[in-house]
Amino acid sequence: MKKSNNDLPHSKLRIIPLGGLEQIGLNITAFEYEDSIIVVDCGLAFPEDDMLGVDLCIPDVSYLEENINRVRGFVITHGHEDHIGALPYVLQKVSAPIYATKLTVALIDKKLEEHGMLKTVKRKVIAHGQSINLGQFRIEFIKTNHSIADAAALAIYSPAGIVVHTGDFKVDYTPVYGDAIDLQRFGEIGKKGVLALMCDSTNAEREGFTKSEKTIGRIFDEIFGEHQENRLIIATFASNVDRVQQIINTAYKYGRKVAVEGRSMTNVIEVATELGYINIPENTLIDLNDLKNYADEKTVIITTGSQGESMAALSRMAQNIHKKVTIRPTDTIVFSSTPIPGNEKAVDKVINELESNGAEVIFQDVHVSGHACKEEIKLIYSLVKPKYALPVHGEIRHRHAQGRIAKELGYDTDHILMINSGDVLEIADDGSKPSIAGHIHTDSVYVDGLGVGDVGSVVLRDRQRLSEDGVVVIALSMERGTNQVLSGPEIISRGFVYVKEADELLEDATSVLEMTIEELQDRNVNDWGKIRQALRENLSSYIWQRTKRRPMILPVIMEV
Amino acid sequence: MKKSNNDLPHSKLRIIPLGGLEQIGLNITAFEYEDSIIVVDCGLAFPEDDMLGVDLCIPDVSYLEENINRVRGFVITHGHEDHIGALPYVLQKVSAPIYATKLTVALIDKKLEEHGMLKTVKRKVIAHGQSINLGQFRIEFIKTNHSIADAAALAIYSPAGIVVHTGDFKVDYTPVYGDAIDLQRFGEIGKKGVLALMCDSTNAEREGFTKSEKTIGRIFDEIFGEHQENRLIIATFASNVDRVQQIINTAYKYGRKVAVEGRSMTNVIEVATELGYINIPENTLIDLNDLKNYADEKTVIITTGSQGESMAALSRMAQNIHKKVTIRPTDTIVFSSTPIPGNEKAVDKVINELESNGAEVIFQDVHVSGHACKEEIKLIYSLVKPKYALPVHGEIRHRHAQGRIAKELGYDTDHILMINSGDVLEIADDGSKPSIAGHIHTDSVYVDGLGVGDVGSVVLRDRQRLSEDGVVVIALSMERGTNQVLSGPEIISRGFVYVKEADELLEDATSVLEMTIEELQDRNVNDWGKIRQALRENLSSYIWQRTKRRPMILPVIMEV
Repeated sequence: MKKSNNDLPHSKLRIIPLGGLEQIGLNITAFEYEDSIIVVDCGLAFPEDDMLGVDLCIPDVSYLEENINRVRGFVITHGHEDHIGALPYVLQKVSAPIYATKLTVALIDKKLEEHGMLKTVKRKVIAHGQSINLGQFRIEFIKTNHSIADAAALAIYSPAGIVVHTGDFKVDYTPVYGDAIDLQRFGEIGKKGVLALMCDSTNAEREGFTKSEKTIGRIFDEIFGEHQENRLIIATFASNVDRVQQIINTAYKYGRKVAVEGRSMTNVIEVATELGYINIPENTLIDLNDLKNYADEKTVIITTGSQGESMAALSRMAQNIHKKVTIRPTDTIVFSSTPIPGNEKAVDKVINELESNGAEVIFQDVHVSGHACKEEIKLIYSLVKPKYALPVHGEIRHRHAQGRIAKELGYDTDHILMINSGDVLEIADDGSKPSIAGHIHTDSVYVDGLGVGDVGSVVLRDRQRLSEDGVVVIALSMERGTNQVLSGPEIISRGFVYVKEADELLEDATSVLEMTIEELQDRNVNDWGKIRQALRENLSSYIWQRTKRRPMILPVIMEV
Repeated sequence: MKKSNNDLPHSKLRIIPLGGLEQIGLNITAFEYEDSIIVVDCGLAFPEDDMLGVDLCIPDVSYLEENINRVRGFVITHGHEDHIGALPYVLQKVSAPIYATKLTVALIDKKLEEHGMLKTVKRKVIAHGQSINLGQFRIEFIKTNHSIADAAALAIYSPAGIVVHTGDFKVDYTPVYGDAIDLQRFGEIGKKGVLALMCDSTNAEREGFTKSEKTIGRIFDEIFGEHQENRLIIATFASNVDRVQQIINTAYKYGRKVAVEGRSMTNVIEVATELGYINIPENTLIDLNDLKNYADEKTVIITTGSQGESMAALSRMAQNIHKKVTIRPTDTIVFSSTPIPGNEKAVDKVINELESNGAEVIFQDVHVSGHACKEEIKLIYSLVKPKYALPVHGEIRHRHAQGRIAKELGYDTDHILMINSGDVLEIADDGSKPSIAGHIHTDSVYVDGLGVGDVGSVVLRDRQRLSEDGVVVIALSMERGTNQVLSGPEIISRGFVYVKEADELLEDATSVLEMTIEELQDRNVNDWGKIRQALRENLSSYIWQRTKRRPMILPVIMEV
């Protein structure tokens, strides 16, 4: 379904997730009422294993482009990549102001600056508790807790009713910085009557409550206490400002200097310090180059690379290719993180490399999640008491798990709305049942190098094929008119077989091609398309029979 | 270091791991004393993510080939792929008899049969408690427990002393089938004095004891009890015969019929039933085709695919492409397994697909490991009391974790031998310190289709490049002698860019090539190598500048 500006606007509330419901990341949802569209979040996703060569995925926003005159702004819940990462790309197509809390805006600014877009995009800082009016919508920012500071839930007031969107959140009664989640306000809004709750599902399969970030401070204290003879290298998520603060606090307590390594870590600490989200005691932070001036056991290195990213600082240290830090058997490396699904092997590799260097690695129980577990989800439902449950964030299995929680809480199946990306969910203000009124195209758009959208399923299928068995080029010159072979056939292969060991195979393959050409000439086949096809098919089946491989075969015929 | 038959044999015991110490799988260790070599296990490894297109990895056994006259036999600890999988390949180069317990031999037989090698290879069934003499060695098979029946530890008696090799093992006091691990015998051998213990490290990072396989029976009982309205589909490891037995027992108790799906599952159940390792009550097993004759809630399907393998039965069911089983919202799917590291995402995908179909998925706590945890490892050390600890199996981090356990038990660092694959560990019988006497080449050999060893690092590097940015072929015909261009340059690309959207890019690229050729002719460059190089370099830098991609560029010049 495509809607253009010329269509009549709808007087129902329409909620259209433009991505993110089938995979992690790519969080972006359009809310529409008559002449107004607001967009909540605008995230990117990292490529799946089968998206070969793709750098990142961004949402398809053609629907917003087609309705650009109605788009009132982007409202952002927090500063993680899967909620802000696509902004520089999307804003080039859909220019509209951005509304977010202070740290979130600062992180967006960093991003826009890198893309040279700081001057062209309007950003407005909104405090928790504040509201903004965007056309038919009023949006209130509500304080929540998450693994990044300054996260917000949104109460979206529309003529059809209130929708509460939690963003990514957890309930932290004892946060490291700032206030706990504003549970009172959730209750107050709930009292008014909420149409729908869009609640974070990420941890909906996990029992109980997520622990407070503060519990990690006590664990750092233990680790520092037990490793007073060792240098400490602590890897964590760059954006987890509170975690970094706790490492710094503990280092200060134990009289250690702190060096920071990794571009994103340095960036975030800079921004967070400027804005007062991190408080670094004087003479604590030192430059990485000055580490050598201190005894190992009097230093801590905070680094990126907790996900085993091959180019990150920690991986380079583990492989002994880091220019400034060499792992020593007296080092203790702490992973203050858990592997994001899909990164397990990469993290494993780094741990093995660190252990090979004789270092001790601590990787268990030095992390708490930033997402609400079952009991927290029940708490939010019980405060908000929405008419409809509309689980968001996390994978399909997690959203279904939240659906089961809603069921436990007494919701009927038809009040638990399981929708997919691109579904146009329509909710009228007359109390009638919400319905899927259409579907919008929402395949994600691949970014590869400078190219946005020029890599699609055909290119990926070819890359897949090339990656498995390589490529074989058949080169041939033929005389114009007579179709006499002037040169070739020659075979050039890459990624197929170790050529020096496959002399015979390639010779035999050339014979197969020569025979094919002879046979085609005997049959007076002059159509080059048919010649190409015959060469490809005969070589392919010969290679399959000999090797059980299917390289991509490219016949190149030059007409002379 | 290469040793040939002409060298003088050594009168020291030499232990040479030919693989498996840096990665999971590929377990194979040579034990050598004077004129005798025995080989313990002969496993394969599944390819890492960067081994594009590789089907499996087998060990490099050139050392055994070079010393074939001294090789007395293969002694196999149990029937898992990472211990028997390379046999069909290795036996083609190093023919020697195989010694193993009954089920292990039966599984090896299946494998040899598939490769048409059943007639050429000698196999001998050894019972637990029995010993065999192979040259200077005597090898005793000791009963252990593992996630496959009939696992054995080995006591390897040599003139230099006794080495105890646990194989993969756990301590199960209440096994489902057969006896518990023969702890008495471990103690008895320990009393004699053991030179070295080669102990399974896989779970050396985990506290406590691994639970008994029998505990899973009680969990099945709960699941069957709570899901009397649902069809049950249970995915587990095909080789876990005791697990399958427990599913069958519970199904029988609840009056359900059992259907089996997946080739490896059917194979193993057939072999295990024949040999009496599985006992199926009459009228319990039904054909998959007959499922339709029974009410859903009166059936159980046992299936392969617990690792999310894309071609396995469960994945096909989840994607609705299985010919005989359609997932229904009333189905309950049980993963009686945990993802092997690296398979997390694939398992995740299957769970999401199953949930999308409305089915319930149970995936937590329906599995116990087959490997010893910390306390079990301590127990074995305390029974065997080896002079030297030589941790094996598992990743580097796991072997180091076992090293730390040995340290805790009072071993000096120089009695904990951390060696690598290919190291030749020499232990004299005079009590002198063991030493690394050399190193043997042990890169694993890649199997791709029918090719064994014809894919190496060059081919893989090319595949990697091709997978990221595809291939661009430059085709050109030139006149012999004059070097005049008769036809081309033409550009053909695959996996690089969606061609219909890149008209302009490819046109401009062709111009770059034409200018390059002109410039070369102006400079009278006639060397084709140089022409090729210039075309490649100029196109490459143009493409990089325009797209930030680096496709593989293949210039093909036809001489006419």
